[in-house]
Amino acid sequence: MKLYGYFRSSASYRVRIALNLKGLAYDSVAVHLVKNGGEQLSASFRALNPEALVPALVDEHEGNEMALSQSLAIIEYLEEKYPASPLLPKNLLDRAHVRALALAIACDVHPLSNLRVLKYLTGTLGMSEEQKNTWYQHWCMTGLRALEEKIAADPRSGKFCYGDTPTLADCCLVPQIYNAQRFKCDLSSVPQLMRIHQNCMDLAAFDLAAPANQADAE
Amino acid sequence: MKLYGYFRSSASYRVRIALNLKGLAYDSVAVHLVKNGGEQLSASFRALNPEALVPALVDEHEGNEMALSQSLAIIEYLEEKYPASPLLPKNLLDRAHVRALALAIACDVHPLSNLRVLKYLTGTLGMSEEQKNTWYQHWCMTGLRALEEKIAADPRSGKFCYGDTPTLADCCLVPQIYNAQRFKCDLSSVPQLMRIHQNCMDLAAFDLAAPANQADAE
Repeated sequence: MKLYGYFRSSASYRVRIALNLKGLAYDSVAVHLVKNGGEQLSASFRALNPEALVPALVDEHEGNEMALSQSLAIIEYLEEKYPASPLLPKNLLDRAHVRALALAIACDVHPLSNLRVLKYLTGTLGMSEEQKNTWYQHWCMTGLRALEEKIAADPRSGKFCYGDTPTLADCCLVPQIYNAQRFKCDLSSVPQLMRIHQNCMDLAAFDLAAPANQADAE
Repeated sequence: MKLYGYFRSSASYRVRIALNLKGLAYDSVAVHLVKNGGEQLSASFRALNPEALVPALVDEHEGNEMALSQSLAIIEYLEEKYPASPLLPKNLLDRAHVRALALAIACDVHPLSNLRVLKYLTGTLGMSEEQKNTWYQHWCMTGLRALEEKIAADPRSGKFCYGDTPTLADCCLVPQIYNAQRFKCDLSSVPQLMRIHQNCMDLAAFDLAAPANQADAE
């Protein structure tokens, strides 16, 4: 498998964690989101993924190479193709719970702090760096505090977002905390999430997936 | 089952379509996102879903009521619990494709045009109505054009986003087109999506789920 990604991209980071948790080997192909006017916008990358977003996972199927996009769709694919070291629980309500935690980050937090969105704020809308950072912190912390409340209230929470084994939810949480720290969010109001984050970072699967440990890290 | 939603909420609309496509009966509970300072922010609704977002689906499980959140997690739950009239194909790569189409809307288009985001733009950031509408149209059409390109290029596209039976992708597409029309987006550049949208709206499952046909419609 080949993973087209960027060291700092949250969505790429999620897939790297999932691949590591499942013990699946893959080759990394760096797509630089800033250099060369954004390599994700190049014709060659758009041929792979017309959405012009990382990550894209290329897997072989009956001798053909198939490109998959969208981090959560890629992780669900890995889960279905390689069921060992499952990232979703068995029980249907618990699966829905874990997916909801993951989507609360993937849909309600991360899209608002995407590089292209921040660029639109400072470029097209002429917002200051300070307004951009306030925007980032507002949406990031609105989402993370809701998640904190949900996890604090749920008896299924454990060492990780769900129980004592990492799931899809942790694959999404860790990159979001990395991002939040980069944008200097005050994370003291989400102690449960920070506890889980630390438990994750103690595992090699998460550590090896971290932006600083990628070949394209700057 | 009880679906807490709002007639105009895209995410609620997605779940209504899925329930109808599967022929599942449900009771609607209206949560007005504007009146009373936003009923989704009330203590009673937050007890159900700390994220303070619609929809929430309440289902019975061993005599207890369980609340599920996040539209895509709810639809995956319905798919697993009620496999008849499947909303995902069988083949793993095709499942990943359909999920990626759905997520391209749910993660890359819809979050940027959420009511709370638009309010932040005009409120906190002091943007004009025109800037707000330009923002909406920019993100909506960036996402929809990428989707158009993907669907136009893919041999699996048919009467619907994938093949000739509606899937999870169509559950997400139709509410986004409704939203785009509301914000007066020029949809002439996405003819494949508009063709699929029409094919969906010809079906009772989609029509009955439309905002105008809800009890709380204004």
